[in-house]
Amino acid sequence: MRSLSVGLGDRTYSIHIGSGLLDRVAEFVAPLAPTSVLVVTNEIVGPLYGRRLVTALETLTRTSMIELPDGEHTKRWDSVAAVLDVLVARGADRKSLVVALGGGVIGDLAGFAASIYMRGIRFVQVPTTLLAQVDSSVGGKTGINHPSGKNLIGTFHQPSVVVADTDTLQSLPSRELAAGLAEILKHGLLADAAYFEQVVGDLALLRGRDPAALAQAIERSCEIKAAVVGRDERESGERALLNLGHTFGHAIEALSGYGEWLHGEAVGCGMVIAADLSRRVGLLDDRAVRSVEHAVALAGLPPRIEGLGADAAISSMRGDKKAEAGAVRYILLERIGRATQRAVPDDLVRASLLAGGFR
Amino acid sequence: MRSLSVGLGDRTYSIHIGSGLLDRVAEFVAPLAPTSVLVVTNEIVGPLYGRRLVTALETLTRTSMIELPDGEHTKRWDSVAAVLDVLVARGADRKSLVVALGGGVIGDLAGFAASIYMRGIRFVQVPTTLLAQVDSSVGGKTGINHPSGKNLIGTFHQPSVVVADTDTLQSLPSRELAAGLAEILKHGLLADAAYFEQVVGDLALLRGRDPAALAQAIERSCEIKAAVVGRDERESGERALLNLGHTFGHAIEALSGYGEWLHGEAVGCGMVIAADLSRRVGLLDDRAVRSVEHAVALAGLPPRIEGLGADAAISSMRGDKKAEAGAVRYILLERIGRATQRAVPDDLVRASLLAGGFR
Repeated sequence: MRSLSVGLGDRTYSIHIGSGLLDRVAEFVAPLAPTSVLVVTNEIVGPLYGRRLVTALETLTRTSMIELPDGEHTKRWDSVAAVLDVLVARGADRKSLVVALGGGVIGDLAGFAASIYMRGIRFVQVPTTLLAQVDSSVGGKTGINHPSGKNLIGTFHQPSVVVADTDTLQSLPSRELAAGLAEILKHGLLADAAYFEQVVGDLALLRGRDPAALAQAIERSCEIKAAVVGRDERESGERALLNLGHTFGHAIEALSGYGEWLHGEAVGCGMVIAADLSRRVGLLDDRAVRSVEHAVALAGLPPRIEGLGADAAISSMRGDKKAEAGAVRYILLERIGRATQRAVPDDLVRASLLAGGFR
Repeated sequence: MRSLSVGLGDRTYSIHIGSGLLDRVAEFVAPLAPTSVLVVTNEIVGPLYGRRLVTALETLTRTSMIELPDGEHTKRWDSVAAVLDVLVARGADRKSLVVALGGGVIGDLAGFAASIYMRGIRFVQVPTTLLAQVDSSVGGKTGINHPSGKNLIGTFHQPSVVVADTDTLQSLPSRELAAGLAEILKHGLLADAAYFEQVVGDLALLRGRDPAALAQAIERSCEIKAAVVGRDERESGERALLNLGHTFGHAIEALSGYGEWLHGEAVGCGMVIAADLSRRVGLLDDRAVRSVEHAVALAGLPPRIEGLGADAAISSMRGDKKAEAGAVRYILLERIGRATQRAVPDDLVRASLLAGGFR
């Protein structure tokens, strides 16, 4: 087992990564001494791992489970209300605990519900997708979607502990595994060129779900993200760099309808567009752009998007919650291993979108 | 104008109290440099003061207004969603500002909406009821009701500034003025016996809406609450003492249906019951109990509740969010000017409820 600490003052918490950890969740939860536990999961993950987790937690305290529908469309208020209703019905109090068992959708939604129940109760993340293990379980962002934008409604609420069992990745569909690799590549691209090269070299192992390669990548990615978040928890500055590929990715998701593209797939495409845009503003050379494209393709991700409108994308990005007074600050690459943030003229953005398959 | 500071580290903010402040709101908001403003108010307060406030704020930045229905039943998710929809439609970003113009319902609801829009934007309180000026504008509690309990859903989110214009109290219905006096009496009872005596002596002036007496009481009450909140922002200890009368008050509100009793009226009754219970556990003498009853009656508040069920009240209090694992810790008076918190046997609680008019 690998463990690391996310340093956030009195909200500091640990991430445990390794094989067979699902059966040890009770051991990590015990120090929290919850008065009751609600496991929030979905109809795919629940039947696979839910019962085991509930049985383990029942050795500690009264434990219930709620299974929500699978998919991005579950990230809406109705689902949060369903979780809150169960908390109320089971008499959850301020010392109760929410455990999120699933991918990013479940983590974001369960974390949001925990953050607004009685003005905030504790929650634990048990991420079961690669994307959630490397990304959404670090940083405390919770939220749901609004018809007009992804994650427009949410809070910052740090988990009490994160338990990432790499065994759960064995049951993950290949498309979702690739989506997680997009975020791993992103961490290398924005912060650590040597790690990026290593991940590209390991992509065959990672796609083959080699436990050691996975655990190593998850740990390093969590370290990179934790370091950034530790320096800028509320995203007033540096943390925005973690959104490399996300401004474009969110536009892809919004224009194609949430759920059509996986978040990681949209981010993969978004990173290729961001690399192209970095070249157009004179930051990145051709070779580096090609190595980003190559890595995204090698990870099994679609490197291009076809047929979405470039103007609609620009308009959508102006409404992104990172925008201020309609001005978008794009996350660009200065080189592989170093990101920066700046405003870019619309015509250059449009050119990169067209190069990426927009019309 | 009187001003005081609520000391909460980097979330420290000012409260300004006085006559004619509504026309000076832009001056207090200007340092926040918002990219846009949304005024949230209700259909009673909006026509009285909304236009004036919007006109003043429009000198700073793009300003819109939303009017919600009046009353406690507005404190539900639908209303929050309506506020969020307007924020999205007007292109509000992370530097936008929500201004709550109204009583506690509007403040709690608008503050909650601000706290979850884009994971938290700033908000300013312009409380127009005595209750909101002395109570809900200090402390950062936001929230909405759940069918099973008051304020079960919410966050801690501190305002950036509070502007309490005592002129707005001239248009306040007498019943709501009295409800505010309940909280003022509460502050004296739990923290400052001399202030309690002074308020009791000033009740005729206060009910006559004497501006100087009101401003003085609002300031002292805010000071008392701010001191407690400054020492215990997240209610892990001492802050619970501010709930004197509230555990019983919440039960009264829940059992009679929200909106039947004003919150301050229920708290007034709750304080009388809490005083009676303090006597039964041996803390308070008869004379002190009578002086609490006398003060509540003199403030124009109903000192008794008729016909609600004592057992239902006990059961409702067990579900209150202050309860832990079903155990209620009651806020009692050690003497006038000093509160304490403790568990009490059900039979004593029942006796006090019966004495207070429950059956």
